[in-house]
Amino acid sequence: MTETVVSSATREVVIGFERPFVIIGERINPTGRKQLAAEMAAGDYSRVEADARAQIAAGAPMLDVNAGIPLADEPRILAETIQLVQSITDAPLSIDSSIVAALEAGLAVYKGKPLVNSVTGEEERLESVLPLVKRYNAAVVAISNDETGISEDPDIRYAVAKMIVERAADHGIPKADVVVDPLIMPVGAVNDAGRKALHLIRRLREELQVNTTCGASNFSFGLPNRHGLNAAFLSMAIGAGMTSAITNPLHAPEMGAILGANVVMGHDPHCSAWIRKHREPPAESGDAANDGGRRRRRREGRAVA
Amino acid sequence: MTETVVSSATREVVIGFERPFVIIGERINPTGRKQLAAEMAAGDYSRVEADARAQIAAGAPMLDVNAGIPLADEPRILAETIQLVQSITDAPLSIDSSIVAALEAGLAVYKGKPLVNSVTGEEERLESVLPLVKRYNAAVVAISNDETGISEDPDIRYAVAKMIVERAADHGIPKADVVVDPLIMPVGAVNDAGRKALHLIRRLREELQVNTTCGASNFSFGLPNRHGLNAAFLSMAIGAGMTSAITNPLHAPEMGAILGANVVMGHDPHCSAWIRKHREPPAESGDAANDGGRRRRRREGRAVA
Repeated sequence: MTETVVSSATREVVIGFERPFVIIGERINPTGRKQLAAEMAAGDYSRVEADARAQIAAGAPMLDVNAGIPLADEPRILAETIQLVQSITDAPLSIDSSIVAALEAGLAVYKGKPLVNSVTGEEERLESVLPLVKRYNAAVVAISNDETGISEDPDIRYAVAKMIVERAADHGIPKADVVVDPLIMPVGAVNDAGRKALHLIRRLREELQVNTTCGASNFSFGLPNRHGLNAAFLSMAIGAGMTSAITNPLHAPEMGAILGANVVMGHDPHCSAWIRKHREPPAESGDAANDGGRRRRRREGRAVA
Repeated sequence: MTETVVSSATREVVIGFERPFVIIGERINPTGRKQLAAEMAAGDYSRVEADARAQIAAGAPMLDVNAGIPLADEPRILAETIQLVQSITDAPLSIDSSIVAALEAGLAVYKGKPLVNSVTGEEERLESVLPLVKRYNAAVVAISNDETGISEDPDIRYAVAKMIVERAADHGIPKADVVVDPLIMPVGAVNDAGRKALHLIRRLREELQVNTTCGASNFSFGLPNRHGLNAAFLSMAIGAGMTSAITNPLHAPEMGAILGANVVMGHDPHCSAWIRKHREPPAESGDAANDGGRRRRRREGRAVA
């Protein structure tokens, strides 16, 4: 029963086989968000703060923080963003960068035990990221590709994940601190992407016995009603053993699928999280989660339907 | 790779491991529908006809037909209902009754190979229903309870299902013609009902190698947002190997979960059913599937978003 424990200065979150699914809020990321990128580069973190608060209110127990802005001083901005986010929430963070110096700057200021996002199976990444993860006593996301790219064969992706786990052990990082991202392919391009993903998730859980995470939205790339398709995929991935995802907690279909899957897995005792969330009819807009907390509190006295 | 082939006079539907999930429309059932019961008892089948057409339009390839009306002549009414439904659609039917004489009356008029709903593991039911199933060359739903009731232990329910399959074989009914209903418990009462159901569905598929069906809505009994919870359960059950369900195809969340699960399982080549269904934004009401077919046709020329 593998458990990955991450923390802030004052709060622990456990990703685990017998735990509620952990949503890692993905919104603090300037990729594809021009305005946020410009603001972060200029030292204005007001939108970061709003995104952090909204995601926590929507039910994310962890937040991913990315500061990947072209030509900007990413290590400094990532460190500042992490300090800002840690000043307003006790949610543990995932420190997200493809630049090792930025990961290191983030780790240096982080209070608690973060998740480092990420290491791949590429030799140069293994040798630069794993020592950092060990030095700062962090956990790490392991992405199952290597120098040859992303294999379409889930058994090769499994072998890459296994190799990363072994290399992490060589650096003194226990298996429980490696969270594998099996890499979800777009089903519009690869018709058996879903089935292969479920197969791989099951093997990672039962054979390699590691926690798993993914960026689920890639699955629906190019198709209509992406939220509906992501929702079906997420609940099925949880059924196959996935234990966390980097996703947007403000999207109602995905959140419904995750909370419903927690109920199905027996990870919502007395269905109390489900009941709390659905005491009133669901709002019509996917963004309504923003004020769901406030409205819920106002009506706390109502009986359950 | 087990395949259960059912048919009307002119059309076959296959329930199978490598097939799209089969929705068996549940609406033609007077239980809890006073007006429908009164009309059917008086020989007025206009609502039956409307329910049949609406469910077919919403995407159900099979329909369940039940005529369980207290104090009424159920065998005659069931036979008349079946004849009416077969006159307006070529969808294969599930003949649904707890009265053996009604099953027989339905079988006597049915054109094609129906699904008989149902036999249990109770001795008297086995010995009265299985000979009928054999005589009419039908398939049968096997409900995994016996004289001792419904066990909360999924391994006992598995053993009952296995026993029914063996008894069916004694009567010359092949395993492929037995579709097991693992009996879904309400998760509001039994917190590990979902996990037990997934475990049982997986065993029925991998060990007993039979097709499965269920009345999924029982899972959410007593809880808020039942459609949302049923949706998560259905997609996870499909991921675990369930191949059909007796459900309401007019409920948008459940239908979205089923169509999405078909995509995830690789049972929607080129995602074409998903794309066809979602060419326009989803309607707001769960009942909108009623006119979805009409609106879809009108806009068939639109490009995929």
